[in-house]
Amino acid sequence: MHRLRVRVVEDALDANDTIARANRADFDRFGVFVVNLMSAPGAGKTSLLERALRNMDGVRAGVLEGDVRGCLDSDRIARLHVPVTQIETDPAFGGECHLDANMVRAAIPEIPLKDLDLLIIENVGNLVCPAEFRVGEDLRVMVSSVTEGEDKPLKYPLMYRACDLVLINKMDLLPHLEFRLPELLENIDAVHPGMERMLVSARTGEGVDRWRDWLVSKAAKASAS
Amino acid sequence: MHRLRVRVVEDALDANDTIARANRADFDRFGVFVVNLMSAPGAGKTSLLERALRNMDGVRAGVLEGDVRGCLDSDRIARLHVPVTQIETDPAFGGECHLDANMVRAAIPEIPLKDLDLLIIENVGNLVCPAEFRVGEDLRVMVSSVTEGEDKPLKYPLMYRACDLVLINKMDLLPHLEFRLPELLENIDAVHPGMERMLVSARTGEGVDRWRDWLVSKAAKASAS
Repeated sequence: MHRLRVRVVEDALDANDTIARANRADFDRFGVFVVNLMSAPGAGKTSLLERALRNMDGVRAGVLEGDVRGCLDSDRIARLHVPVTQIETDPAFGGECHLDANMVRAAIPEIPLKDLDLLIIENVGNLVCPAEFRVGEDLRVMVSSVTEGEDKPLKYPLMYRACDLVLINKMDLLPHLEFRLPELLENIDAVHPGMERMLVSARTGEGVDRWRDWLVSKAAKASAS
Repeated sequence: MHRLRVRVVEDALDANDTIARANRADFDRFGVFVVNLMSAPGAGKTSLLERALRNMDGVRAGVLEGDVRGCLDSDRIARLHVPVTQIETDPAFGGECHLDANMVRAAIPEIPLKDLDLLIIENVGNLVCPAEFRVGEDLRVMVSSVTEGEDKPLKYPLMYRACDLVLINKMDLLPHLEFRLPELLENIDAVHPGMERMLVSARTGEGVDRWRDWLVSKAAKASAS
């Protein structure tokens, strides 16, 4: 039983990867650099995007929003006059807890790829399944909030391992928490040694320049190649 | 395709419910009241449990811990000399993002049911899938942290709808956040009108007496019936 189950899951992930490669080919054809942005619910993905998108130094950015239900986040992004497309993962039952390559594939005709250099895909808030499904992205970024505690890399290792950059958010709350930042950094290194990290606060703007520069330089490098 | 997919999911949930009823029958046979405790990662489930379990007024409580990886939380609970059993959902791939009835079924032989009045099942940190899978519990409780923002009930409605009580945690951080508590309460009422709620802080202990009293009275009522 157990072995069969693992095989079924592996087959599903293989099928997902095939579709993810087709998405990637479409993004490449238009020279669009794609970032898959993930975190637990309420860690600050949308707020960090709002901060970064205010001044993208000429890089034409768009957003694909994934939510179980509603379009609260895409409304926030649209206010910045950034092209935004919404995927709701809730068709009939409780809703999917992640984006997969097929959902992104279905949304591609709605995304103005020819007008973009950079597409940020904001995944469903969840530290487990989104890490298992590639959607055609170039790089993966996660947000880890200091309010979530130091132990999260050890409890959700796949997410921390799957990402290229971690934004450690809500740094402005540090004085009000019993939170040991060195312990979080140690735990990150334990599951993903040397993973790139930035200390940020979407509220105060701390570290947001670095995050925006990272996005701009990745997108510029992609469009130059 | 889509209709088939929905049917497959419904069949899986039906199968889960059958096993959940078997779990429930076992719990009932031993007169154990069971609470399924859910939240996003880092909302404070374990901390609120630690607070409540320190003085359970004669109610014999045990904990079943669900995590993708590791036994950090069960180590914390064990320090309180409370019987604790660990489920890891990570067999071979990225790990399951929720507990299901079958995982709990497999753990039941390890739980000292005859010595308990109350079993608290701490689910995997996730606001989506845990709400879809009954595991044999009597009631469901969720933790919603004020650091997660006011919009979570609208974005994860099934979770808020599935629960009988919401603990609004990290109230001590309220002065340091741009968080509008009335808006969260309105959003809770929009998806689950009249849902019972308690304002708590695992850090300061605010509201923890009410939460412990709630657990104690539910367990006492169950063992008296």
